[in-house]
Amino acid sequence: MPFTVITEILKKMIKNDKVLLGHGSGGKLSHDLVSDLFVKYFNNNYLDKQTDAAILELSGNQLSFTTDSFVVDPIFFPGGNIGKLAVCGTVNDLAVSGATPLYLSAGFIIEEGFSFEDLETIVRSMAEEAKKAGVVIVTGDTKVVNRGKCDKIFINTAGIGKIETQHVHIGEGSRIKPGDKIIINGSIGDHGMAVLAARKELNIQSDIQSDCASLNGLIQNILTASDGIKFMRDATRGGLATVLAELADKKDFGITLEESSLLVRPKVRAFCELLGFDPLYIANEGKVVVIVDPDSAEKVIQAMIANEFGKDARIIGEITDGYPGKAWINTGIGGKRILDMLAGEQLPRIC
Amino acid sequence: MPFTVITEILKKMIKNDKVLLGHGSGGKLSHDLVSDLFVKYFNNNYLDKQTDAAILELSGNQLSFTTDSFVVDPIFFPGGNIGKLAVCGTVNDLAVSGATPLYLSAGFIIEEGFSFEDLETIVRSMAEEAKKAGVVIVTGDTKVVNRGKCDKIFINTAGIGKIETQHVHIGEGSRIKPGDKIIINGSIGDHGMAVLAARKELNIQSDIQSDCASLNGLIQNILTASDGIKFMRDATRGGLATVLAELADKKDFGITLEESSLLVRPKVRAFCELLGFDPLYIANEGKVVVIVDPDSAEKVIQAMIANEFGKDARIIGEITDGYPGKAWINTGIGGKRILDMLAGEQLPRIC
Repeated sequence: MPFTVITEILKKMIKNDKVLLGHGSGGKLSHDLVSDLFVKYFNNNYLDKQTDAAILELSGNQLSFTTDSFVVDPIFFPGGNIGKLAVCGTVNDLAVSGATPLYLSAGFIIEEGFSFEDLETIVRSMAEEAKKAGVVIVTGDTKVVNRGKCDKIFINTAGIGKIETQHVHIGEGSRIKPGDKIIINGSIGDHGMAVLAARKELNIQSDIQSDCASLNGLIQNILTASDGIKFMRDATRGGLATVLAELADKKDFGITLEESSLLVRPKVRAFCELLGFDPLYIANEGKVVVIVDPDSAEKVIQAMIANEFGKDARIIGEITDGYPGKAWINTGIGGKRILDMLAGEQLPRIC
Repeated sequence: MPFTVITEILKKMIKNDKVLLGHGSGGKLSHDLVSDLFVKYFNNNYLDKQTDAAILELSGNQLSFTTDSFVVDPIFFPGGNIGKLAVCGTVNDLAVSGATPLYLSAGFIIEEGFSFEDLETIVRSMAEEAKKAGVVIVTGDTKVVNRGKCDKIFINTAGIGKIETQHVHIGEGSRIKPGDKIIINGSIGDHGMAVLAARKELNIQSDIQSDCASLNGLIQNILTASDGIKFMRDATRGGLATVLAELADKKDFGITLEESSLLVRPKVRAFCELLGFDPLYIANEGKVVVIVDPDSAEKVIQAMIANEFGKDARIIGEITDGYPGKAWINTGIGGKRILDMLAGEQLPRIC
C-alpha cells in the first residue's frame, strides 16, 4: 500500500465526527473548531481576528462586545462561585481589549429543582462583583430545563465596553516587536487548581483560593501609567502557555518565557505535581498577560503592584526575533522547551 | 386556630424553595422571579422597566441590548432549528424595542459526543438567518460539558441594535391610550405546537410549521409607514395572552381582545384541543403584537401585508378605559373572560 493511502486511512481514523471535551478547552481543538466552523460560516472581519472581544464601530464610537458561557463544576469554590466568575470573565475580556467595561447581560439556564437559596447567593455575588467592577447588569433571561437536562446552573454573560481609539490595537497585538517585555500580574494556576480541589469526588482537603477577580481597575491603571502597552490577554482556559502559543502562531516574532521568573504558589505546585498537571496550562481567572515596550516595563509593574490584584507582578519573558511563530520556555535546569497550545482537555468545566 | 395563622401555614406550604419549570415559562412565575431576585439585586433603572431589551445611552447614541438563551427540545423542528431560533429571537427582541438590530454574539454549550454534522447544520442556519436579517455574528464562545450534563446543545445570543430617539418609548408602551388598536401579523400558536408535535415521545404525525422568523424587516416597514406605533412586543413564551396581561398589569387602561378576530390555523387548533392547550398561551416565534393609534391601524396593516411575514395581519382588539389593569377576551359565544399571565408551565423547553 503506498504511503499516501496509509496516510489517508490514518487521517480518516483520527478524524472525529463528534464534539469532544477538548473542543471546549480553549486550546488547539477549540482553536480549530472556531476556525473551521464559526469563522467559515459566520464569515466576517470581526471573527477573523479571533480575539475574545469584537471591536464595533457605531456612529463614530468604538465599542467592544464579547460573550462567555460559564459551566464551572462545582458552582461554589474557594474564592468565588459561578456568578462572580461570570461577571469577572466578561469584564476581563472587555478590559483586555482596551475597553472600559460598561454593561452586561446575564442569561441563566437552570435545572428544575435547583435551590432558590443557592440561586440567590449566586445572583447576590454577581451584583456585588458588578458593583466592584463598575458595570451594570442591564438585561437578562432565564430558562429552566427538566431535571437531569443540565447540571444545576449555567450562566452566560455578554458585555459592552467603550474603547478609546488609541487602544483599539491592543486586543490584536499588531504593534508587538522583538525586545518587548512580557509581564503578568502574579501567580499562575490558582483558579484551575482551586476548582479541581473543590470537586468532592477527589476528596481532597485544600485551601487553594481561586484568583477570580475583575481586572478592569488594574488594567485602567496600567493604561494610564504607560502608552507602551502593545497587547493584553487574560490567561483563562488553556493557561498562560496557550495564550502565548496562540499569540506567536503565524507571527514573525518568537516568544521566550523564563521558568525561573514564574510564580506558582507552593500548594498549587504540589497539587499539580501530585496529579500530573503543568501549571502553565492551568486556567487563571484573575491574571492578565501584558506585552509592553521595554522602556515601559518598570512603570507598568509599579502600576500593577499599586493595585490589590497586582502585588506579585513581574516580567516573565520577552519577544524575540529568533524562532518566529513559536513560544519557548527556558527551564529552570537550563533546557529549552516549546510551548504548544493545549491539546485535548486537561480539566473540563473549569469555567 | 385563627384564620391568619392558617393563612401563614398555607403560605409556607405553597412557598417553594426550589426552582420550578414554571420559573422559565415566561409567565407569572418568571415575572415573579425577575421581580423578586434579579431586579432586587441587580437594582438599576434598566432592569426596573422589565422590557426584553435595555436601552443604553453611549456618547449620545441610544443602543438597545438584549440576551436570550435557547434550550428548545427537539433541536430540529419543522420550520427551524435551535440555531435559526437563536438568531430570530434576539433579532426580534431588538426590533420590538424600536431598534435596528446590528450585531449578535453567540455562546454555545455543547454536550460531549454531539455530532459535528448537526453542529454544522445549526451553525449554517445561524449564518443564513443572520444574513437574511442583516445582522453580523461578531463574537462567540464554546463550552463543552461531559456527556449527560446538558441536553445536546444550548445556545445563547446577545444582541446590539441602534435605536433612533423617536422610537425609544416603543418598548415601554408609555404612550398607549384608550381607543388604540391591537394588531398582530398573523396566526397564533404555530411555533409551540410545531415543537411539541416534533417530540418523538408523542409519536404524532404533523406538518405544523413553526413561524420562526426575523421580523426586523416587517417592523422597519411599519415604523416607516406610520408614526403612530405606541408599543411592540414579540409574543413568545407565555403566548399572546401573557404579553397582553403583562402589558395591562398596574396600568390605568384595560385591554379587550376579540376572539373571533384571532387566526388559529385548523391543525394548530385541533392539536390544542386534543392536548387541552389554549392557543392564546402558546409560544410564537414570528409574531409581533403592535399597539397603534386608531388612525394608523389601516396603514400599519397594509405595511404588514406587503411583507412576507405579515400576510395575515389583522386588528385583534383595543385599549379600553374600562377594567384598568386587566386584559379581557370577548369569546366567540358572547362571553367575556379574563386573560391572566401564564401560571406554571404549559410546555417546557419550547424555545
